[in-house]
Amino acid sequence: MPTVQPPPDPEQHPRVKAVFDDMRATRHTDYVNRFWRTLAFDPDLLERTWAEVKQVMATPSHLDPLTKEMVYIAVSVANGCGYCVHSHTASARAKGMTEAQHAELLAVIAVAGKTNHLVTALQVPVDPVFDAAR
Amino acid sequence: MPTVQPPPDPEQHPRVKAVFDDMRATRHTDYVNRFWRTLAFDPDLLERTWAEVKQVMATPSHLDPLTKEMVYIAVSVANGCGYCVHSHTASARAKGMTEAQHAELLAVIAVAGKTNHLVTALQVPVDPVFDAAR
Amino acid sequence: MPTVQPPPDPEQHPRVKAVFDDMRATRHTDYVNRFWRTLAFDPDLLERTWAEVKQVMATPSHLDPLTKEMVYIAVSVANGCGYCVHSHTASARAKGMTEAQHAELLAVIAVAGKTNHLVTALQVPVDPVFDAAR
Amino acid sequence: MPTVQPPPDPEQHPRVKAVFDDMRATRHTDYVNRFWRTLAFDPDLLERTWAEVKQVMATPSHLDPLTKEMVYIAVSVANGCGYCVHSHTASARAKGMTEAQHAELLAVIAVAGKTNHLVTALQVPVDPVFDAAR
Amino acid sequence: MPTVQPPPDPEQHPRVKAVFDDMRATRHTDYVNRFWRTLAFDPDLLERTWAEVKQVMATPSHLDPLTKEMVYIAVSVANGCGYCVHSHTASARAKGMTEAQHAELLAVIAVAGKTNHLVTALQVPVDPVFDAAR
Amino acid sequence: MPTVQPPPDPEQHPRVKAVFDDMRATRHTDYVNRFWRTLAFDPDLLERTWAEVKQVMATPSHLDPLTKEMVYIAVSVANGCGYCVHSHTASARAKGMTEAQHAELLAVIAVAGKTNHLVTALQVPVDPVFDAAR
Repeated sequence: MPTVQPPPDPEQHPRVKAVFDDMRATRHTDYVNRFWRTLAFDPDLLERTWAEVKQVMATPSHLDPLTKEMVYIAVSVANGCGYCVHSHTASARAKGMTEAQHAELLAVIAVAGKTNHLVTALQVPVDPVFDAAR
Repeated sequence: MPTVQPPPDPEQHPRVKAVFDDMRATRHTDYVNRFWRTLAFDPDLLERTWAEVKQVMATPSHLDPLTKEMVYIAVSVANGCGYCVHSHTASARAKGMTEAQHAELLAVIAVAGKTNHLVTALQVPVDPVFDAAR
Repeated sequence: MPTVQPPPDPEQHPRVKAVFDDMRATRHTDYVNRFWRTLAFDPDLLERTWAEVKQVMATPSHLDPLTKEMVYIAVSVANGCGYCVHSHTASARAKGMTEAQHAELLAVIAVAGKTNHLVTALQVPVDPVFDAAR
Repeated sequence: MPTVQPPPDPEQHPRVKAVFDDMRATRHTDYVNRFWRTLAFDPDLLERTWAEVKQVMATPSHLDPLTKEMVYIAVSVANGCGYCVHSHTASARAKGMTEAQHAELLAVIAVAGKTNHLVTALQVPVDPVFDAAR
Repeated sequence: MPTVQPPPDPEQHPRVKAVFDDMRATRHTDYVNRFWRTLAFDPDLLERTWAEVKQVMATPSHLDPLTKEMVYIAVSVANGCGYCVHSHTASARAKGMTEAQHAELLAVIAVAGKTNHLVTALQVPVDPVFDAAR
Repeated sequence: MPTVQPPPDPEQHPRVKAVFDDMRATRHTDYVNRFWRTLAFDPDLLERTWAEVKQVMATPSHLDPLTKEMVYIAVSVANGCGYCVHSHTASARAKGMTEAQHAELLAVIAVAGKTNHLVTALQVPVDPVFDAAR
């Protein structure tokens, strides 16, 4: 159960319907997942959030769509957001992630999580050569 | 200052020297950064950690090297490991990350961090369609 | 299922009963939620935890009760504690949080989560003007 | 040192200058802090981020400005973003947060952090009464 | 439901069977928990992860087995990994953790979580006396 | 620099002096570290926090003092609190932690961090056998 009461028929609200229609056209699927149906409790927040997700994730850019989904999964894992891990793993698969790539992604996330903990436990000071301005 | 006292001349220890030599050959650089110099306080931990990082990050695989570095950055940002963000941003640049790709990476990490917070605040239940077994 | 076995009838223990009675009187409700019923497995920990929560959250102070609940929700979201998000969202509503305020709270949490990620990814050094001693 | 090279004279770029000018007018101060000066390495990201922060934090709304700053601090503390804690503590003071309110805010954040850890360690299942739809 | 499709009969794969057999012999139990059954979707990742867990957690060393389980629980709580909290609490009990020790462990985790939040909110600079090299 | 202005001569305040005196007697050292000197900006918060830390960490109990320090380090690492990692590593050393135990502690924290990430990425459902009530 969510912490807000999502509207039972969200598309009766014209602004919600417009967002959902754009989402269906952008993603080439009729399915609108629960995050968006829940967020529809506030059309303002829904519109602004979708505009940003569309702009960052669904607009051709300097990173390919699958790489962006894998980065999204990585952030969601480290932040412990189970729903987000599920939804973006499904998106990554829809964008062509193979099982072998998924296993590799998990291995990178795991070793990053491990060395993050080691570095924090060791409190290693930053090397001057990492200076972006050099 | 780190929480352990790294050996002043770590390469006097033959197992440490072997790891550092392999690292230099693998990474095509003479520079060994402070994380490894600090971890050298325990040759066992150094050997095992390097073996894993080399295997995951420096072995040809199903993901290209730059994608792996960007995933590493993403995990490190979400875990709040400043040193790791610095060192893997430097690695990503060394592997060809352009400034435009870097900006795009930051935008994806930022929107993921944002929606992770929204989903957790809303406590959205997982959609059955995300089931990997379907 | 919890990781401890909560006592089946916790109020048979006089110290537990005293805490629950004080909780009911303080909160003006008969309902004692599962966190407290679970914590009752150790009366010491229960007593000390309730004493602190009562002192911080239920004593008139320099911040109004609803603001304190919203801060509690914010911390719980960032820490990924689903139960805590649920229980304190319910408390905030009981203290008068409107749906519009809830949406606004989510928007602030979301933008904070986003810029936290951006700042960590950028590793921005602290501005001297932020010095509290200036 | 940041992970990107901020432009030495960012306001030579007209889009950056426009953002900084709007920021100065909105915040009633000439000072533009390092986060924004660093983010200026990518005018797109700068514009979009400022537009959102302005919209959420600097537009009259259902929550008063000081409450929003305190929620921002709470999220930033739980996410471990030191820079963000500094900058929003400075903002909260500029918006009237007294020392007594600050101490109270810290007490709420601390007890939330504590009970978040307890609930996660106990794995307490959510009470049905927290259902927003009831 | 997990994000990968675990093999329905994982022990048909000889490398998976070898890992599970070693796990049963090492842990003195026939039960192989779901984490390992899920990870079996990639025998490489399964082998490497088990080799490390066995080496760190199930090899006689400078810390006793129960202390290591309690440290594991502590990390898992702070990282918000519910499954890990459950599985390592069960392991700690199997290694002799009493209810009183469990309550004490929770109290330490709770006060650490609390002071972590306070220190981050206060941004306390590190004392020179903590220097490991002194 | 901290986010509050610590009192320049905190022990002029009798309640602060009483806390510091008790701290010196309890810990058998004259040194009062910066966390407490900073927290002295609010004598209430100082008194309550020290009372809890003393009760949990410095009172004979079911866990030995070194184990408690190692659990504290583990939580602090996972929460990314650098100051806390430093101060409790120094405390653990003062309570007898050897270099070999420290290396082992880091190895446990690292593998826990790693498997936490794997489990979250896999979204493994909890095994019924972990039920504490069985």
